[in-house]
Amino acid sequence: MLNFALFGAGRIGAMHGANIAHNPGSRLHTVYDVQTGLAERVAAAHGANVAASPAAVMADPSVDAVLIASSTSTHIELLTAAVKAGKPVLCEKPIDLDIARVEQCKRDIAGSDVPVQLGFNRRYDATLRAMHDAVRRGEIGQLQLLVLTSRDADIAPMEYMKVSGGIFRDCTIHDFDYARYVLGEDPVEVFATGSVMIEPDLASYGDVDTAMVVLKAPSGALVHINNSRRAVYGFDQRIEAFGSKGMIQSENFHATHLRRWTPTSTNSYDKPVHFFMQRYAEAYMQELNEFIALIHNKTAPAASFEDGRRALIIADAATESLRSGRTVRISYD
Amino acid sequence: MLNFALFGAGRIGAMHGANIAHNPGSRLHTVYDVQTGLAERVAAAHGANVAASPAAVMADPSVDAVLIASSTSTHIELLTAAVKAGKPVLCEKPIDLDIARVEQCKRDIAGSDVPVQLGFNRRYDATLRAMHDAVRRGEIGQLQLLVLTSRDADIAPMEYMKVSGGIFRDCTIHDFDYARYVLGEDPVEVFATGSVMIEPDLASYGDVDTAMVVLKAPSGALVHINNSRRAVYGFDQRIEAFGSKGMIQSENFHATHLRRWTPTSTNSYDKPVHFFMQRYAEAYMQELNEFIALIHNKTAPAASFEDGRRALIIADAATESLRSGRTVRISYD
Amino acid sequence: MLNFALFGAGRIGAMHGANIAHNPGSRLHTVYDVQTGLAERVAAAHGANVAASPAAVMADPSVDAVLIASSTSTHIELLTAAVKAGKPVLCEKPIDLDIARVEQCKRDIAGSDVPVQLGFNRRYDATLRAMHDAVRRGEIGQLQLLVLTSRDADIAPMEYMKVSGGIFRDCTIHDFDYARYVLGEDPVEVFATGSVMIEPDLASYGDVDTAMVVLKAPSGALVHINNSRRAVYGFDQRIEAFGSKGMIQSENFHATHLRRWTPTSTNSYDKPVHFFMQRYAEAYMQELNEFIALIHNKTAPAASFEDGRRALIIADAATESLRSGRTVRISYD
Amino acid sequence: MLNFALFGAGRIGAMHGANIAHNPGSRLHTVYDVQTGLAERVAAAHGANVAASPAAVMADPSVDAVLIASSTSTHIELLTAAVKAGKPVLCEKPIDLDIARVEQCKRDIAGSDVPVQLGFNRRYDATLRAMHDAVRRGEIGQLQLLVLTSRDADIAPMEYMKVSGGIFRDCTIHDFDYARYVLGEDPVEVFATGSVMIEPDLASYGDVDTAMVVLKAPSGALVHINNSRRAVYGFDQRIEAFGSKGMIQSENFHATHLRRWTPTSTNSYDKPVHFFMQRYAEAYMQELNEFIALIHNKTAPAASFEDGRRALIIADAATESLRSGRTVRISYD
Repeated sequence: MLNFALFGAGRIGAMHGANIAHNPGSRLHTVYDVQTGLAERVAAAHGANVAASPAAVMADPSVDAVLIASSTSTHIELLTAAVKAGKPVLCEKPIDLDIARVEQCKRDIAGSDVPVQLGFNRRYDATLRAMHDAVRRGEIGQLQLLVLTSRDADIAPMEYMKVSGGIFRDCTIHDFDYARYVLGEDPVEVFATGSVMIEPDLASYGDVDTAMVVLKAPSGALVHINNSRRAVYGFDQRIEAFGSKGMIQSENFHATHLRRWTPTSTNSYDKPVHFFMQRYAEAYMQELNEFIALIHNKTAPAASFEDGRRALIIADAATESLRSGRTVRISYD
Repeated sequence: MLNFALFGAGRIGAMHGANIAHNPGSRLHTVYDVQTGLAERVAAAHGANVAASPAAVMADPSVDAVLIASSTSTHIELLTAAVKAGKPVLCEKPIDLDIARVEQCKRDIAGSDVPVQLGFNRRYDATLRAMHDAVRRGEIGQLQLLVLTSRDADIAPMEYMKVSGGIFRDCTIHDFDYARYVLGEDPVEVFATGSVMIEPDLASYGDVDTAMVVLKAPSGALVHINNSRRAVYGFDQRIEAFGSKGMIQSENFHATHLRRWTPTSTNSYDKPVHFFMQRYAEAYMQELNEFIALIHNKTAPAASFEDGRRALIIADAATESLRSGRTVRISYD
Repeated sequence: MLNFALFGAGRIGAMHGANIAHNPGSRLHTVYDVQTGLAERVAAAHGANVAASPAAVMADPSVDAVLIASSTSTHIELLTAAVKAGKPVLCEKPIDLDIARVEQCKRDIAGSDVPVQLGFNRRYDATLRAMHDAVRRGEIGQLQLLVLTSRDADIAPMEYMKVSGGIFRDCTIHDFDYARYVLGEDPVEVFATGSVMIEPDLASYGDVDTAMVVLKAPSGALVHINNSRRAVYGFDQRIEAFGSKGMIQSENFHATHLRRWTPTSTNSYDKPVHFFMQRYAEAYMQELNEFIALIHNKTAPAASFEDGRRALIIADAATESLRSGRTVRISYD
Repeated sequence: MLNFALFGAGRIGAMHGANIAHNPGSRLHTVYDVQTGLAERVAAAHGANVAASPAAVMADPSVDAVLIASSTSTHIELLTAAVKAGKPVLCEKPIDLDIARVEQCKRDIAGSDVPVQLGFNRRYDATLRAMHDAVRRGEIGQLQLLVLTSRDADIAPMEYMKVSGGIFRDCTIHDFDYARYVLGEDPVEVFATGSVMIEPDLASYGDVDTAMVVLKAPSGALVHINNSRRAVYGFDQRIEAFGSKGMIQSENFHATHLRRWTPTSTNSYDKPVHFFMQRYAEAYMQELNEFIALIHNKTAPAASFEDGRRALIIADAATESLRSGRTVRISYD
């Protein structure tokens, strides 16, 4: 039974706190949030303490592991401190929006064998894990085309959008990571383009709400990603892997398994589940299961710090391509 | 190139006339209808003659084959006359609504080798033929359960319903015939029940608009049929064959291959094609192709006079079961 | 936080024990099983006690509620004792296989207001609950046809089959219950037939492995159920409700949302989840949630003792119809 | 009844010849092919003449219309001659592989009001026409993302590939045309990339067998196309249009409407129809219907000479992008 400290008690932190509390291998020991009221609420729900400061958490010998679900800008400081304190870290994506800070963090934690797991939820999802496994074991032969559709149900408020880092670092980064996961190799070229078709105010931030990306991998495999910040029919995440021996598609999740036939609509499903926290509810539990297991077994995480760094490098290159209109070579050094 | 005489120039007769005219192996030579105006219209459309009487058609040596699409009550007389005149017959279903008349006809044409083909459209449909072939060659092992869903898009006017012979002879007869075709054996027991839930006036004719039937075959295979006279979402014909090695389902046909996702409906198809003449348009052409081929090749038809007789026997037994509330043994002697 | 006593620590009891332990509103306090080793294992997994006897459980004032997941023949004795001890009961289906004993139990607990909830898992399943709600609120108008497909992935060993009570009491009882739930009325007639096509030894017990049932409700609505003890492609549970304004279908659950396209198979899903405990895993949690809520709120259960009694009455009538070959009127008095 | 001259009696010419012969509004009058044997066979099948030369056809006053299905390099000469002879032309795509020759042809026929219709089969397909109509009438609001998947069942022999003009002019040109049709505007930028993953010999011709394209339209709408020369599961053509009010998808066509469930595959369809001539069989008939109608009604064709010219311009720009690795601005002047 591992004692967890949770950083961040907002919406996603509260979810992680509940998962920690209900997992038979973990206990929610301490919660920290700059908004003490949030920390108190999550702690009270699961019989945990409220920590006075991050430093107090790191110094507490009864804390076995750390889950970071605080705001993005605090990730690196907390992650570095936890590693230095010898506490395994499960950190929500992204590591940071600034690659220079990520590189510095990489140097700061170099040489440590403290486990660091990144929270790329898709790598822990049963359907997407099964797709990865099938492709990597050669079920569709050589992977040739990979098409990812990722559309949010609705755009976030502008106050969030302004500091989101742009669509590629905020949203497409999941697709970049999953593409690397399925490809089994790092893309070397990216072309990205986009349009402002939903929220005109984005234009003044150089951001877009409608985007298309093409990546090329060393094997010759091609990847396409298309994104929208608003799909009126709901959260839309589909993936198609095409290879020399066949194709695998991952379809949307719907709230029920019902089909409706009416005079105006035929064989209609329930809408896709609306929000990523519903869509990936089980993935978040599995993410925690795997984190607990790797602490015990000293195995590698499904999503590592390096995976977080490389996804951000692709997002940066895509952002540069969007601005320049040119294909950008991707360097991971 | 065979010269055809067409009896009946109503809606379905006109369709058969066009098929005859466009088939490279046939020519529409003569049309007869008690409503001369209808006959004239169809004949004119395809450069055919209008016949003065059925007798004149039967006596005309240039008529190579006969297609009977006139009203049900005229089928037997025309069929018998054609056989006696040595002219191959393609007769629309049913042979007749009265089994005594059908038995008499059977005796009247006994011994003749003039081809008689029944127009059970499903036996000529590419999807349903493929289902039959798969089941009969053992693809799903031993057939154990067969479930047929047959629902019309809307109920016909009461003037038609009154003389339709009741739902089992008018509508379910297609299911009875197709069940025999797929089973490869004759059901020996039938249970039928029904309700009046759409058209209250049916009650006074002992008819129902909503029905369920169960048949049992000598092998132990069980068949279920459910019917409705009105499916508000459109013509609904689905079949499921379940066996010891798997299952085959036949789904509905839709006007296009589109799927629509809106805020109120997800993955919605176009409605099923509304009417049997659209759903089975290609089956009617194939029915004619096979009729032409069997005249030339002296092979057996996919649907024979005897198939028509046996389907009617089952429909009669189902009607008896509906009235008595009891299982009825089916005798084909 | 309610303290639960669990009776039965076999496969399904162990699952209920884990659900009780993980539910934020309940705690696993005591476990009883005639096989003490099983009780010890489940108790140890969740920090619970092992009870010395059922009587000791009933006498223990710290036990707030009872969950009965022991073998069927023990249900009535435990249920009655719990009610008399004033402890709310969640009892696995069926109440018993003998309607006389169920009637006696009904009389024995008459007048008590201790909550008794039956474990008909389908009533707690999100998809099937949504179907019920949609039909009951009139979304498809008047319900006219209800078609239930229930096929197990594989037949149980003969030692179980012999004491199962027959296919209708053991398996179809779920369909009878769910049909009542969706109909909102009690069927008044049943016709049932069946065949032995999978396990020849069943014949000597008067049981069948392949069955079809038709029910008729007072409104005229017709219900069809088809069952098989072995579907080689996996656990197959589908339901279709057809009414005057449309149709709702409930489809199978599959392990992932993947589709595969290969040279030999097109758009293939993962198999249906193989076993009812996977298919209904969430339903069992919801069943517990609702039981806890009704203890607190004194509301009626989604599935009551009376629902269990009536489903058994239909199963008995179906068994009689199977034997007699006749339609059987159903009396619930 | 229009008398048609057919140029080209190969595989696709023979299909057009049969369509002309069976259409109630047309007659196959004359056939010309440089391989006289082919012309003779098609002419004999439909009671047509064999023409001595193209010039003889153009001079024949009994020829009312011309269908050009000969090899690509002959299209322009025949098309120009027909227009100058005042004979309406239905010309298979592409007009030519060389834009300079197309521009010259445009000048040569400028000012004529003789109808010229291009054979972009997708514009005449019921499903894809319905998709176009729905998008153009605003059913999905503002079009934002358009994703086209076009994969052949198998690669053609190298002798064809060498002279095909490359994947964008030979294959993707259909997608470019259909994108323009649905967009209702001309793309202004193209990015294209590709790999040789199927047929290594293509590399020496600068061609690829696996490709991805992104187009941008003046409205901001983005288009993605992915192509493969070999999909082992069959001919794969799907299109998805995403807009501010919803999404429309066009799915593949399969030979039957069956679904199969076996121990190794679940809900498997029949393979997609293997070849474009099957997939678009009805589209070719409709193409002819519309050509006949526009001759009579003097209306504009669904696919015009200018549509053929513009699709080729996009294909040229994509080819340039493939070679340069850069986004290419598209100019239609």
